[in-house]
Amino acid sequence: MDIQAYMQQIGRQARAASRQMAKADTGAKNRALQAIAAAIERDADKLLAANAEDVAVAKTEGLESSFIDRLTLTAKTVATMAEGLRQIATLPDPVGDMTDLKFRPTGIQVGKMRVPLGVIGIIYEARPNVTADAAGLCLKAGNATILRGGKEAIRSNQAIAACVREGLAAAGLPETAVQVVETTDRAAVGALITMNEYVDVIVPRGGKSLIARIAQDARVPVIKHLDGVCHVYIDDEADPEKAIRIADNAKTHRYAPCNTMETLLVNENVADLILPPLAEIYRAKGVELRGCEQTRAILADAIPATDEDWVTEYCAPILSIKIVADMDVAIEHINTYGSHHTDAIITENYTKARRFLREVDSSSVMVNASTRFADGFEYGLGAEIGISTDKIHARGPVGLEGLTSQKWVVLGDGHIRV
Amino acid sequence: MDIQAYMQQIGRQARAASRQMAKADTGAKNRALQAIAAAIERDADKLLAANAEDVAVAKTEGLESSFIDRLTLTAKTVATMAEGLRQIATLPDPVGDMTDLKFRPTGIQVGKMRVPLGVIGIIYEARPNVTADAAGLCLKAGNATILRGGKEAIRSNQAIAACVREGLAAAGLPETAVQVVETTDRAAVGALITMNEYVDVIVPRGGKSLIARIAQDARVPVIKHLDGVCHVYIDDEADPEKAIRIADNAKTHRYAPCNTMETLLVNENVADLILPPLAEIYRAKGVELRGCEQTRAILADAIPATDEDWVTEYCAPILSIKIVADMDVAIEHINTYGSHHTDAIITENYTKARRFLREVDSSSVMVNASTRFADGFEYGLGAEIGISTDKIHARGPVGLEGLTSQKWVVLGDGHIRV
Repeated sequence: MDIQAYMQQIGRQARAASRQMAKADTGAKNRALQAIAAAIERDADKLLAANAEDVAVAKTEGLESSFIDRLTLTAKTVATMAEGLRQIATLPDPVGDMTDLKFRPTGIQVGKMRVPLGVIGIIYEARPNVTADAAGLCLKAGNATILRGGKEAIRSNQAIAACVREGLAAAGLPETAVQVVETTDRAAVGALITMNEYVDVIVPRGGKSLIARIAQDARVPVIKHLDGVCHVYIDDEADPEKAIRIADNAKTHRYAPCNTMETLLVNENVADLILPPLAEIYRAKGVELRGCEQTRAILADAIPATDEDWVTEYCAPILSIKIVADMDVAIEHINTYGSHHTDAIITENYTKARRFLREVDSSSVMVNASTRFADGFEYGLGAEIGISTDKIHARGPVGLEGLTSQKWVVLGDGHIRV
Repeated sequence: MDIQAYMQQIGRQARAASRQMAKADTGAKNRALQAIAAAIERDADKLLAANAEDVAVAKTEGLESSFIDRLTLTAKTVATMAEGLRQIATLPDPVGDMTDLKFRPTGIQVGKMRVPLGVIGIIYEARPNVTADAAGLCLKAGNATILRGGKEAIRSNQAIAACVREGLAAAGLPETAVQVVETTDRAAVGALITMNEYVDVIVPRGGKSLIARIAQDARVPVIKHLDGVCHVYIDDEADPEKAIRIADNAKTHRYAPCNTMETLLVNENVADLILPPLAEIYRAKGVELRGCEQTRAILADAIPATDEDWVTEYCAPILSIKIVADMDVAIEHINTYGSHHTDAIITENYTKARRFLREVDSSSVMVNASTRFADGFEYGLGAEIGISTDKIHARGPVGLEGLTSQKWVVLGDGHIRV
């Protein structure tokens, strides 16, 4: 197969489909989502059989169990996929929203209209449920999508893609509005991320190294989600009860997500008060503590933290702890070592809360709340395609709106510029 | 000079300054803008002397007169620079705007805060006035800026930079918030557009080839402004008087700007009626007409248009004309051959107006108004750093808001995720 020619063909078809999708009305898009959900439910056995083949091959290749877990579909995850698509159908359609229409002194009326981005390329690892989720969100936002999943999930993805095509056709929308790349050749990714003329944005989902590699080689804009090195800063004017509750939840609610706290910063005036009871909780949950020298003077069992710890996303029951002189030192630490993802202050002080909100340069900044809230569902977006650590275009959880752009509209009545 | 090391130093300083600028209050930023304006007025003679040296060198190098024109400062353009900065001071500060703060069922309150992008790199040709304009806009939006102007304007730019530094210092802001690259070595551009760690976005201003080259090599996101191949489509339900007035203005108001019409599309049912009187106007103004076969059947003096004409930005008194069967053909032509910049329909038909607004995939779409209105001042942005033909982040005229991002803020009262 000539990969370049194949991908160019996919790109051309996507561009053509994107024009149809941009003018598709809300009803047609919702009918497609409902029809895809119904097809997935009806074909659940087929999907599970295709997935079982993928899983069998992955096992013979000796892939690790966490990988197999992410690859494996169950009757429950298939039902969740269908349910997710129906939820997307219930979300308001962002496309066509007109805002800020204002008359100018010249007599023209100027405003903005929300429009699809066009063609979105999604590159992800071997997690078949992403195929349905990403296709559904991009479809509702009026885009055409090119999906390139991990090669180990190719049979599962093709089975899901068949349901998607069927649903699109049932709603009178072009089947090429969602295309799954049918080759596992890596050159397809290289082609996808450099086809400026056919692809408007790339959304990579997966490990940090995958995303960094794509960002490095892409000629198409990329909405990146790199790492989450999130902080909670416990101020000396924190309510100790709230501080302990949030520091516990931010670390131990779940260890793997990107919005889990990796470094706890504690004001030196309250470290003696806060750290011992908090460490007790962490120890009971099996969290390994690594601390700065001051921390270790209070928590004798903490392992010495190195500079490497301050920039590490553990995704594991490990926490680094640093005692700081004041909020300025905490903010400096967060802006220097953090990943600009999500950071929280625990304080009752109004002025410090306002300053922290403004001065911490992260996609989500919180006061007296757990970093675990940084999530499209929790924020009310309905669903998310990812959490962007970029500042350009979309920052933080990216929902339907992040998959659109705005164009200017000008309404006149024969107006000319003089 | 070790260019890499020099640019890294500039980058580090800009990153540090950007943190100060992000928390600078509106008053300080406005005082800086006023002080820069005052310094420019006071030093007008110095600026003109430095500029005269640049111009003299450029003349000995035999650069063409349009280039010399753009390079040359006069007492009037210096006064306009100062006035532009004072106008920027009067614009509302976008930084810190909090919007959409809503309570979620969990009890947290979620919203967005507008924040600076961070460090903006501006790459432009030998137009010294851009130095003051771009620095002023980026400063007001709370960013640090690295300016790399054309090498022929280096003395002018350094003289302006001295005024900028003085103004920043007078307002208590870091002088490194605006840095003019002091070397004319081209390697400085290569370094600037690849310093991901220090630069958040690149705004290139200048010719299409400069911008395309930068976009190709950049590792930092680029807000591009490529070409403007703008269209006016005269529908068969157009008011002929409005159609002729707008088609005249869109082409002949000024020939060089990117929002000037390059291709006129006319519905075949009204071509006989509209084209002869319109051609009369164009001929009187010396506009060369190039037409499709049908056009030439009506306008015998029109030169045959080739496919090349449909994608060409003439920036000159030349117009290509095509007769189309209906609006669908017109939209297809615009989306295929245009540059997604600015396109207008002239019609009295409500349904066609709505469809054109939605289906034309351009940064500005207009009904019964001249494409010449596509401009930051005309849209009420106060000023613009450029007109983006990208869909990502900022589309169309980019003002202060386009030089900012939004972060999420979460306000809680001890809330944890369950």
